[in-house]
Amino acid sequence: MTAIERLSLNQWTTRRWSVREAVDGCVRHEIPAIGLWREAVAEHGLAETATLVTDAGLRVSSLCRGGFLTGPDRGLDDNRAAIDEAAALGAACLVLVVGGLPGMAPGGARGPGFSRDLADARARVADALTALVPYAAERGVRLALEPLHPMYCADRAVLSTLAQALDLAEPYPTAQVGVVVDTFHLWWDPEVLTQIERAGDRIASYQVSDFLVPLPADTLLGRGMMGDGVIDFHSLTAGVEAAGYRGDIEVEIFNADIWTADPDHVLSTMKRRFARYVSGCVESG
Amino acid sequence: MTAIERLSLNQWTTRRWSVREAVDGCVRHEIPAIGLWREAVAEHGLAETATLVTDAGLRVSSLCRGGFLTGPDRGLDDNRAAIDEAAALGAACLVLVVGGLPGMAPGGARGPGFSRDLADARARVADALTALVPYAAERGVRLALEPLHPMYCADRAVLSTLAQALDLAEPYPTAQVGVVVDTFHLWWDPEVLTQIERAGDRIASYQVSDFLVPLPADTLLGRGMMGDGVIDFHSLTAGVEAAGYRGDIEVEIFNADIWTADPDHVLSTMKRRFARYVSGCVESG
Repeated sequence: MTAIERLSLNQWTTRRWSVREAVDGCVRHEIPAIGLWREAVAEHGLAETATLVTDAGLRVSSLCRGGFLTGPDRGLDDNRAAIDEAAALGAACLVLVVGGLPGMAPGGARGPGFSRDLADARARVADALTALVPYAAERGVRLALEPLHPMYCADRAVLSTLAQALDLAEPYPTAQVGVVVDTFHLWWDPEVLTQIERAGDRIASYQVSDFLVPLPADTLLGRGMMGDGVIDFHSLTAGVEAAGYRGDIEVEIFNADIWTADPDHVLSTMKRRFARYVSGCVESG
Repeated sequence: MTAIERLSLNQWTTRRWSVREAVDGCVRHEIPAIGLWREAVAEHGLAETATLVTDAGLRVSSLCRGGFLTGPDRGLDDNRAAIDEAAALGAACLVLVVGGLPGMAPGGARGPGFSRDLADARARVADALTALVPYAAERGVRLALEPLHPMYCADRAVLSTLAQALDLAEPYPTAQVGVVVDTFHLWWDPEVLTQIERAGDRIASYQVSDFLVPLPADTLLGRGMMGDGVIDFHSLTAGVEAAGYRGDIEVEIFNADIWTADPDHVLSTMKRRFARYVSGCVESG
């Protein structure tokens, strides 16, 4: 086996592909794992997707995404549905993007109940976890808390650092609540290597994409193919390895140019860049 | 005295005003302090500016800015010049924006020697401080390390959190090396209140502006007038007060709309918003 056998395609990287096309693409390019998105799975059908990935011999490295726990209703029903879906797909984890300030939609629109009380929003996340963890544990689903870059704190995730994610996860067994280490979100953090070491087997997912400078007008799309931005993947990947993580490494890129490019070309580039920037310091699967 | 007597206009907020116009504006609006920028001071003349602000009875709450210590030559000569200027102006501190990755210009252009080695860039800052602090101390100038929002880590400042700034400052007396607490840069940090408390009399400058969501296409201009964005100024200001800071509170806003607005209108709004969002929890000067 080679390190490439830990590569996973997060399907948002080839966003215009359906689940079937993405699965076929993985098989064609010998990529052994896929990170699925709920919207795409719903379109193809949950049971049909489970069968499709199993028949293709792919691992499901993650399901994206639950979360948005900071709003008025905390979204618990939708999160329970997401947990059920992750169980049906045999996903290694359900990624949780916890949500921004109460009453603020992704993109910044303010709705009823908008509040600037960040500490309260963060407390709501901890509170929602107490409701969701037992449900997920019963179904064998590992929740994965994803800290997002601080520029998304207000409208997407009040969870901004790995330290904060680990503090939230700490009350629970590592098999029930893990964390996502995403290079785009965390590369700048002076504490990131210390916290990756602290995380140890809390690491449920390792996601890679580069940080582009300057950012595009829509900052959500500021991710790039590894090598196109400013991140030193070696130190982060070596840290994740040293922490003991041996799971799949997902490439998740939100980028307007990559979304309009030929997905087969994207997958070829992704494999080449993965080999050049990431897999040099990982053990084979 | 009222809390408004701790208000300072950072002159970049009314960027198209010359030093003379900004000083006149402060006098006209009864704003007792000003944060000056080196470019504007050079245009008016250093000695002339010192005389102008003294005659107007204004305090110089800061001089912006030295720094950019991570490049090939570490910019030491230019920083010594900035220190001399801060001394001549009697500025309360010289703000240091430490610089991004080596070989990357503000805005992201890559030059010779571009490196992704963030740890090395951060070490360069510590190294440059050892050269600059004695020079500043001899001239009675307090250096103020400013952590910038993590979205600027690559191209403007590898100093991203207050904790990191305090670690850098720690080897030096508080009178020689302080830190800047800027709401725009730090509001998201789960550790910010703890670190403000830790900072105590390290706080050399407190700067306020709001964080806009969504950010504009040029993320550098994502600051807004207090109340227009997502920041809860009360908790941050109360923390800075509890830490013992009794200096001026500067309003520093980079914003295309504010820069094109009538500066007198900007100052009126600024005073009103300062009273509404900030000064309610500060002691009078």
